[in-house]
Amino acid sequence: MRVLGIDPGSLVTGLAVVEVVRDGLRAVGHECIRMKPVELPIRLGEIHRGVQQMIAKHSPDMVSVERVFVSKNVHSALVLGQASGSAIGAAVAAGCDVVEYSTREIKLAVVGVGNAKKEQVQHMVRALLSLQAQPSTDEADALACAICHIHTMQVAQKLKQAEIG
Amino acid sequence: MRVLGIDPGSLVTGLAVVEVVRDGLRAVGHECIRMKPVELPIRLGEIHRGVQQMIAKHSPDMVSVERVFVSKNVHSALVLGQASGSAIGAAVAAGCDVVEYSTREIKLAVVGVGNAKKEQVQHMVRALLSLQAQPSTDEADALACAICHIHTMQVAQKLKQAEIG
Repeated sequence: MRVLGIDPGSLVTGLAVVEVVRDGLRAVGHECIRMKPVELPIRLGEIHRGVQQMIAKHSPDMVSVERVFVSKNVHSALVLGQASGSAIGAAVAAGCDVVEYSTREIKLAVVGVGNAKKEQVQHMVRALLSLQAQPSTDEADALACAICHIHTMQVAQKLKQAEIG
Repeated sequence: MRVLGIDPGSLVTGLAVVEVVRDGLRAVGHECIRMKPVELPIRLGEIHRGVQQMIAKHSPDMVSVERVFVSKNVHSALVLGQASGSAIGAAVAAGCDVVEYSTREIKLAVVGVGNAKKEQVQHMVRALLSLQAQPSTDEADALACAICHIHTMQVAQKLKQAEIG
């Protein structure tokens, strides 16, 4: 199983591909799209291109996107929604199935705590994937998002096997 | 000049192409993407496909998108943002320039009143384009969005000519 994780943002979007290997998980590739503060449509186009390039390069089986969380600011929700929408639309158009996970679900899956700090996510992602260097927070979030989907699938599979057994 | 207008929505997205002809404006084509309440990524994929099909069919010079307006509800802002983001990302990926107009700007351009009612927009759009039948509200909004960009360009051009003259 190979999963593309996406942490969408209107200025920085994290992309990461993680795959299941015999002894655990492996980071196949991870990168950030860092955008200049140009007009939003141009940035949405960059997100679209980045997502489709990553899919073309690594052929993931599934795309896992961090669900945008904004508690109050309607304008932020709108802009982050547009970044997320461009990423998801591009992934579906490239033939991928897409699933969204909340930040809380991702932190629970990776750190074991739903309100874990960004540094804890970076630390755990690095440990789980045996990365030589600490990934940036946005790449760590994308990696965590991919790991979250893999864990969710593995748990579901174990539950199914337990039922059959 | 040929403009694709888009009124993005997570359940209904209006698409319309309007072009400038000798004696005014002509509706080249208009349609609605009506989506079943399936998972959001699937709907975002449908918006993406609909936008790219419309661009491939009618080769617009510009894409004009109604800027999502949500005053309070953060969840609505997020979902509408995702619909808008998918549409804009698809248009940019198809090689188009994209501009956004607020609902108020569109109503001002088409009806002359920034807080015009939906029925007034439908009525004016039908009159301006000499449509035989009343368009649906979503198609009327997409047509109005295209007309708004054409008007804006025409006004800018006249101002420029006045400066030169």
